[in-house]
Amino acid sequence: MRDERLSKFRALAALSPDALSSIAYANQEIFLGLVVAGAAGLAYSWYIALAIALLLAILALSYTQTIQAYPSGGGSYTVARENLGVRFGLVAAAALMTDYILNVAVSVTAGVAAAASAFPALWPYRTLLSLVLLAIVTLANLRGLRESGAIMTVPVYFFLVMYLALIAAGLVRARLEGPSSLALTAPPATAPLTLFLILHTFSAGCTALTGVESISNGVPIFKSPESKNATQTMIAMAVLMGILFIGTAGLTQYFAVVAGPDETILSALTRHVWGTGVLYLLVQASTLLVLMVAANTSFVDFPRVASIVARDGYLPRQLMFLGDRLVFSNGILVLSGVAGLLVVAFQGDSHRLIPLFAIGAFLAFTLSQAGMVFHWRREHGRRWSVKAALNGIGMVTTAATVVIISISKFVDGAWIVILLIPLVVWGFNQIHRHYALVAAELSLRGVPPPLRPLPPPRIVLPLSSLHRGVIEALRYARSISDNVTAVYVEIEPGSSDKLAKQWREWGLDQSVRLEIVPSPYRSVLGPFLDFLERTDSEHNDGRTATVLLPEFVPAHWWASLLHNQTALAIKIALLYQRHALDRSRAVIDVPFYLRE
Amino acid sequence: MRDERLSKFRALAALSPDALSSIAYANQEIFLGLVVAGAAGLAYSWYIALAIALLLAILALSYTQTIQAYPSGGGSYTVARENLGVRFGLVAAAALMTDYILNVAVSVTAGVAAAASAFPALWPYRTLLSLVLLAIVTLANLRGLRESGAIMTVPVYFFLVMYLALIAAGLVRARLEGPSSLALTAPPATAPLTLFLILHTFSAGCTALTGVESISNGVPIFKSPESKNATQTMIAMAVLMGILFIGTAGLTQYFAVVAGPDETILSALTRHVWGTGVLYLLVQASTLLVLMVAANTSFVDFPRVASIVARDGYLPRQLMFLGDRLVFSNGILVLSGVAGLLVVAFQGDSHRLIPLFAIGAFLAFTLSQAGMVFHWRREHGRRWSVKAALNGIGMVTTAATVVIISISKFVDGAWIVILLIPLVVWGFNQIHRHYALVAAELSLRGVPPPLRPLPPPRIVLPLSSLHRGVIEALRYARSISDNVTAVYVEIEPGSSDKLAKQWREWGLDQSVRLEIVPSPYRSVLGPFLDFLERTDSEHNDGRTATVLLPEFVPAHWWASLLHNQTALAIKIALLYQRHALDRSRAVIDVPFYLRE
Repeated sequence: MRDERLSKFRALAALSPDALSSIAYANQEIFLGLVVAGAAGLAYSWYIALAIALLLAILALSYTQTIQAYPSGGGSYTVARENLGVRFGLVAAAALMTDYILNVAVSVTAGVAAAASAFPALWPYRTLLSLVLLAIVTLANLRGLRESGAIMTVPVYFFLVMYLALIAAGLVRARLEGPSSLALTAPPATAPLTLFLILHTFSAGCTALTGVESISNGVPIFKSPESKNATQTMIAMAVLMGILFIGTAGLTQYFAVVAGPDETILSALTRHVWGTGVLYLLVQASTLLVLMVAANTSFVDFPRVASIVARDGYLPRQLMFLGDRLVFSNGILVLSGVAGLLVVAFQGDSHRLIPLFAIGAFLAFTLSQAGMVFHWRREHGRRWSVKAALNGIGMVTTAATVVIISISKFVDGAWIVILLIPLVVWGFNQIHRHYALVAAELSLRGVPPPLRPLPPPRIVLPLSSLHRGVIEALRYARSISDNVTAVYVEIEPGSSDKLAKQWREWGLDQSVRLEIVPSPYRSVLGPFLDFLERTDSEHNDGRTATVLLPEFVPAHWWASLLHNQTALAIKIALLYQRHALDRSRAVIDVPFYLRE
Repeated sequence: MRDERLSKFRALAALSPDALSSIAYANQEIFLGLVVAGAAGLAYSWYIALAIALLLAILALSYTQTIQAYPSGGGSYTVARENLGVRFGLVAAAALMTDYILNVAVSVTAGVAAAASAFPALWPYRTLLSLVLLAIVTLANLRGLRESGAIMTVPVYFFLVMYLALIAAGLVRARLEGPSSLALTAPPATAPLTLFLILHTFSAGCTALTGVESISNGVPIFKSPESKNATQTMIAMAVLMGILFIGTAGLTQYFAVVAGPDETILSALTRHVWGTGVLYLLVQASTLLVLMVAANTSFVDFPRVASIVARDGYLPRQLMFLGDRLVFSNGILVLSGVAGLLVVAFQGDSHRLIPLFAIGAFLAFTLSQAGMVFHWRREHGRRWSVKAALNGIGMVTTAATVVIISISKFVDGAWIVILLIPLVVWGFNQIHRHYALVAAELSLRGVPPPLRPLPPPRIVLPLSSLHRGVIEALRYARSISDNVTAVYVEIEPGSSDKLAKQWREWGLDQSVRLEIVPSPYRSVLGPFLDFLERTDSEHNDGRTATVLLPEFVPAHWWASLLHNQTALAIKIALLYQRHALDRSRAVIDVPFYLRE
């Protein structure tokens, strides 16, 4: 899939948009979570941001270790499967795949929120606009977008430049103006400031960290030395994310910025720093663009995970081949179809989608970190206990986060994901079980060589009249067997007389028996199938007769509509419906091409 | 289809609802056509009604002659085809089929107008309600409605009783009250009273006469003596129609009844005569019911005409069999689908649909009458010239009506039908041409008996691994030919080594050649098809190799999604796509049933 290795500069753009763009909705969630408790609540946003930044630092350090240990790409599924067993691997895969879908829905809705903050007239049309963005990303992927191209790199660096400039300008301004008081700007509290409220807000803010694992999955796309470059890029990304997140959250609180109902908090902050001029619009545009690129990363990551899981036999085998055009297109359509449903169901509002988000990511983080702990213990290399301890801290922190999110967001929608993940794992296991049973049934064990010979088959040939196509089919039938029976289903009594006469004229009665099967109810298929089963029983040799279908094929597909599709109906009935005998039956198609 | 013969009483109910119910929309059209010219315009409604009644008398007389001449059913298609040639027959068929579709749309919308006149709150929902009525009629037909049952008879006689009572009461009231003056009730004129306006209104009123031919089509369903009973029923129907039409139109003008924008003129008349009590509601209910029965007649007549045209090879042969459940259901769905589109496109307003209506019916009338003139001349029987003259008058009158409708309603929508009918006839001819060419290609002329022998085919068997299903397929292949080649498309270099080893272990190399075809681009289908064409060219014996497909069939359909559908892809490619060689190729399916 990837033909060329990427420099650190381009790899950062290819692998980090998901993580970097998260600050757009994470800031928004912290604000919406705390504003209900008024000024007292909003005063906590700085601490929540710091806690999340600390979590980011722990995760980034943990993942640099994964990069060292898995230079060929250590996705959560791989790490969990290798170290904790396949069961945990599947949980990690289900969690990740759920999260990739939600990332699409959250990113497009957050992008629309950024755009609609600049143009409040768009606010009522957020669902529709989110679907439009989704359609654009989908079409670009169907057309075959290169994830490493300039179309990805430019928006990411544009976003970084705009936000770093915003923070710099904000700091200058803060120096000149001094702090503002939330007591003057915050709306009155409508809910008490409880521990639950703070944990709830922390959980929502943790969505900032979705996507930080991307670089550890993508080690092989770096230029050599891959691990070193990936580690440096991981650290660079974590530092950039930290600056963006702490910077925006800190300035928001310092200036006591509060957003109205039809604006995001980042938009309100930007207006405070830059006013509503061109710079403001550029910041909003960069937010929209980076979120579209972030949505796009799911279209790369989802099929990649699906292909690895399929390779182990837990998803349909067709998904194994990322290069398969048809499967790939179907995958894109399924992914954006489900994301589109989510957008519609949650009315294009990222705030309503967030409770479903992040559980999957943090569950995968936890399993991956736990896997790394086992990995170091098993390897018993130099300083293994320090490495294990570092991953252990990551594991405990992320596990605690999963518990906090699950409980605090349960009624808001987390229950959907908590129900869904085990269901998906159950599905994985059903698929695997099916493959195993089929493999056992198809196994050659107990079927000793050599190939035992088989007598030529009995051939049954249905026909409605004697024409060139039938003559060719009869010649074919006689070339493979001496036992050929032609069957005519007679709907109108006496209609077989002409055929029987032609049969004798052609001397066909010498070599092929003609059977007339009466059908009083105008059906051809039923009496024919009955004939087959009756004669099979009569022969009682354990074999079924082969059906040979003379079929003329018109030159144009639409002309098929002008002909009775009896041959097709027979084929479908024989191949895909099991009949009384439940023994398979060979079917031979002898087509006759028409020039018309 | 029809198992029992009908008495005149029940035959009238079965065959005349289309004609009788027409007075509902015909009265409405005359009113709407003239009201724009105010009182002076409405004064003409009586004369227009008389002219249409005269036309009715001429048509009824003409058709009693058709009944005599065609005791086995003289539809316009049959009469025109036999006497004027197939070209005119097809025009008549196209005209009739167009009209049957329009009859459905006009009847349901007029039925809803009758109901909404009684409950004006329903008026804005006429499109939706029309679609609901259409759905009811469609479902009843899909469930298999008997057109001669009580469900048809009761509404027709209920309608007749209600309207004859209405007219009788109206006459009593007229005697007591004397005439009213239109000058007092009519709205002011908004358009001048021109000859065009009068002809335009006459054209719209002619929709009263659609359906009068039904009895002549249905002669065979009468009890013996069929022709005599049918003639008497025809006359009874014409007399009843005349009374209803002249009666309602006459009373409307006598009482100077005028309808508002959300009421039909028949509703306004009924209110004038009965007030708004129970009797009024019963009249409206009978109108709604008879129009539903009228819509239903198209579901009987349309497939009947299609089946006769199909029998002559101008429509797909499947349509021949009226008993075919699948074809029949598809036909019902197509008919109501198109009618539904018309209802939506013309916003559930019968007044907007009317310009498309009646051209088809009158064109078919004209061709049928013209056919009868030729029929009498050719037969040269007793008093043939009188009979021919009678049909000749019918022909001239209906032809004149076609011209008047076409011109006066052209811009209102008649152009659609005038364009459509030739297009449908062109389609008929294309279908017929296709069948003739296919018959010539399939003809045995020039293929002398006896059946020339053919050597056993070369067999090519694609496989992806050696499993039980493949072993069974190889046994089958060897039972019909000594020349069997197995083909493995190798996507990953070296992946064929294991297969080649198994091949030798099984001693298969003794009897079946194994070919490894490399595929650098991950495609199985392309390299396999290339292999077939290359080896066919190499053999150069004018024959193509037969492809034998080992295929395992899972026990549940959904399990098919878990397996590569390579066999299906190969089948589709071989059977329905023509390849470079453009020579047909036999395909053998050897399924292997899985218990899983």
